[in-house]
Amino acid sequence: MSDKRYKLPLGFKASGVHCGIKKNGNKDLALIVSDIPAQAAGVYTKNIVKGHSLKWTMQHVKGSRVKAITINSGNANACVGPAGDADAELIADYTAKIIGCDKNEVLLGSTGVIGFRLPIQNIKAGIDNAYEKLSADGASDAASAIMTTDTIKKEISVDINLSGKTATIYGMAKGSGMIHPDMATLIVVFLTDAAISDEMLQKALSSAVNKSFNRVSIDGDMSECDMVLMLANGKAGNPVIEQENDDFRIFAKELEKAAIYLAKLIAKDGEGATKLVEIRVINAPDDNTAHVISNAISKSLLVKTAIFGQDANWGRIINAMGYSGALFNPETVDIWLGGLQVCKDGTGLVFDEEKAAEILSRDEILIAVDLKMGTSSDTMWTCDLSYDYVKINSSYRS
Amino acid sequence: MSDKRYKLPLGFKASGVHCGIKKNGNKDLALIVSDIPAQAAGVYTKNIVKGHSLKWTMQHVKGSRVKAITINSGNANACVGPAGDADAELIADYTAKIIGCDKNEVLLGSTGVIGFRLPIQNIKAGIDNAYEKLSADGASDAASAIMTTDTIKKEISVDINLSGKTATIYGMAKGSGMIHPDMATLIVVFLTDAAISDEMLQKALSSAVNKSFNRVSIDGDMSECDMVLMLANGKAGNPVIEQENDDFRIFAKELEKAAIYLAKLIAKDGEGATKLVEIRVINAPDDNTAHVISNAISKSLLVKTAIFGQDANWGRIINAMGYSGALFNPETVDIWLGGLQVCKDGTGLVFDEEKAAEILSRDEILIAVDLKMGTSSDTMWTCDLSYDYVKINSSYRS
Repeated sequence: MSDKRYKLPLGFKASGVHCGIKKNGNKDLALIVSDIPAQAAGVYTKNIVKGHSLKWTMQHVKGSRVKAITINSGNANACVGPAGDADAELIADYTAKIIGCDKNEVLLGSTGVIGFRLPIQNIKAGIDNAYEKLSADGASDAASAIMTTDTIKKEISVDINLSGKTATIYGMAKGSGMIHPDMATLIVVFLTDAAISDEMLQKALSSAVNKSFNRVSIDGDMSECDMVLMLANGKAGNPVIEQENDDFRIFAKELEKAAIYLAKLIAKDGEGATKLVEIRVINAPDDNTAHVISNAISKSLLVKTAIFGQDANWGRIINAMGYSGALFNPETVDIWLGGLQVCKDGTGLVFDEEKAAEILSRDEILIAVDLKMGTSSDTMWTCDLSYDYVKINSSYRS
Repeated sequence: MSDKRYKLPLGFKASGVHCGIKKNGNKDLALIVSDIPAQAAGVYTKNIVKGHSLKWTMQHVKGSRVKAITINSGNANACVGPAGDADAELIADYTAKIIGCDKNEVLLGSTGVIGFRLPIQNIKAGIDNAYEKLSADGASDAASAIMTTDTIKKEISVDINLSGKTATIYGMAKGSGMIHPDMATLIVVFLTDAAISDEMLQKALSSAVNKSFNRVSIDGDMSECDMVLMLANGKAGNPVIEQENDDFRIFAKELEKAAIYLAKLIAKDGEGATKLVEIRVINAPDDNTAHVISNAISKSLLVKTAIFGQDANWGRIINAMGYSGALFNPETVDIWLGGLQVCKDGTGLVFDEEKAAEILSRDEILIAVDLKMGTSSDTMWTCDLSYDYVKINSSYRS
C-alpha cells in the first residue's frame, strides 16, 4: 500500500520533505495548498492542555477561507510558553509569504515530543523546499511527513457523484500510539473539491469523526496537539451543498466510510500491535451503555495482553464490562470470540480451546458482546498490547 | 521479608496449604479462624459483575459474628452460574462443620481465573488439611496461599496501645495485576484482637481503604472477586471502642498506616514492575481535582513506559493531566521528577538529563505536580510498565 500514490482532489497540491527535525532523516514537514481559498472544518483534542500550533489552527478554521496547511512532525509545538505562540504565528506568516496569501489563511499542525522549542530556521528552510516540490500527486509525501511512530502510511481517496459532478475526497492520517477517542493522538487531513458550505462541512466531519476516530483506542492516552481538519475548495463544480439534501447525505456517508477506513488503519498500526481487534456491543438498552462497554473493553490492558498471547481469557472481557460504569444484567451477557461463543448468560461455556487459539491467531479479531437488553449497538477498534508497545514507548525521546 | 513469620493477634489461628488448584504446587487454600466470634467489616469491588463467593461474603459480614474465613486462589468462583452460588455455600458449610460453627459465621474469598467451576473435592480436602495445620504463627502460610501472580508475600503487624491494653493489628494482602481503586484486584484481610463495635470497625476500615488500596493503580483493570475484610475479636481486653474517641483515632490511624504499607507493597510488586512510583499532586483547588489528576497520571501507559525506560518525558505527565477531566490552569503547573524540576508554569525547563536519568534509575520515584491553585493534595502509588507485564498477562491461564 505504501507505494501507491494518490491523486489529490482538483485544485490541491501537496509535498513532504525532511527539514532536520527527525534524527533518522525521514520526512518531517508537510505542506498542503489549495489554489483557491477553501472552506474549512476541524475537530480537536479535548485535552485542556493545548499545543501552541493547535491553538492557532482552532482560531483560524472558523470564518477564514484557508489556503494552506503546514504540519511538522518529530517535535510538537507545545508547552514551551509564550514563545510557542509566537513560533506558530511565525510559521503561518512564513508559509503565507511564500505562497502569497494572508497568514490568517494558513492552518498549522505539529506533532512529536513536547516541551522543546521548534527549530524555526529548519522549518523555514523546509517550507521553502516543500513549496518547490508542491504537486498534485505529492499527497503521499505529505502523508509520510506527518508520521511519527507509524509504520504504515495511511491514505484514502474516494470519488463521489454529486448531482452529476464527480468530486473526490482524499484523506491522510497519522496515529499509532497515545490513541484514544477525542482526537488523541492523531492528525488527519481530509481534502475535497466538493462545493459545500463550512457549516455543512463541519456537520459532516463531526459526524464522521464520531463514528471513526472517536471509536479507536490503542492505549487510552491523549495528547494536546491533535486534530482532524478538512478543506473543501469547490473545484468539482457541484451545486454548493448548503443543507441536508441528498448530496449532503452522499458526501457525509462517503466521508464516514473513508474516516472509518483510516481509523481502522490506525488501530491496526497501533504501536507494537500484531492484531486489529473490533469490539462490537449489541442489544444494549441505549447507545451510551453500548459505548461505555465497548470503550472499557477496548481500553483493558488485560484483554489486550490476552489477545497478544492468543489466550481465550474471556473473563477479562466481562470483567471490563463490569467496571465500565454501565448498568447491565451480568446474567444475560453472551460473549463471542470470532464466531465462537465462550460465555452464555454470564456463565462460562466449555469451548474448543484449539478453535479459540486458531481464531486468536488471526490478524483481525472480532469480540462480540450481546447484552440482550435492547436494540442499541456500538463498535470500537483497538489492537493487542505487545512487548513492542513497551519497547517503543520506553525510549521514545531517545 | 518473605521468611519472616508474623504472630497473629490473640485468639486467631491461620494456615495455608496446597489443595491442588495451582498447577505449580504452590499453596492455594488459606484458613483463618477466630476462637470466639469476631466483629467483621468489609469493603468490596465496585465491579457490577460479582463473584459467587464474594456475594456470599457480602451477605454474611453484616450482622453475623464471624468465626472463620476460607480463601482459595488459582481459580475464582465467578461466572459459572447458579452452581457457583451453591459451591460457595457448600465451602462455607464444610468449613463450619470442621471448626464447629454455623455456616453463616464463615466468610469466603476466591481469586484466580474466572469462568471455571471450583474443584470442590480438592477444596474440601484442603480445608481438612488446613484445619490440622492451624496455628497462631500460621499467618504467613495463609498469606502465601492467597497469592496469585504476586512475587512477594505481603504482611504487616503493628501493636497499639488502647487505654493501657496492647492490641495487635495484623494484615495480609495479595495483589499484583488487574489493580485499580475500588478493590481491584486484591484480597486483604486484617485481623485484630482490639475490642471494637462492628460499626466503628467498618468506619475505620472504610477510611483506611480510601487512603491506601483506593490509591493504587497498576493497570486500571478491576476484577469481580475482590475485597478487604477485617475481623476484630476483642481478646485484647481494651474498653470496647463504640464511638470516635481517642482509642478509635489511634486504632484508625494505625490501621491506615498498615493499609498504606500494604498498598505500597502491592504497587511495588505490580506485575512486571521494576519501580514503585509515588504521584503527589499538591496545591489543587479541591480534593477531587487533586485525585482526578493523580489518578490519570497513575493510569497513563505512556508515563509508565517512560519510567520503565528511565526517560524523563515529562510531557506525558502534563498530557495525562490535560485529559483527566480535571479543571486546572495549564500555565501554572510545575512538575518535579524526584527533586528535579522539569516544568515551570506549564513550560518545559532545560534540565540536567544525566541527573534525570539517575533519578529515574532508582527503585522508588516521586512525581510531584504543583497546581498552585489551592491547598488540596492527593497521593497515588503505581509502578512502571515493563515487558514482563505483557509477558505475565499474555499467558496467564496457561
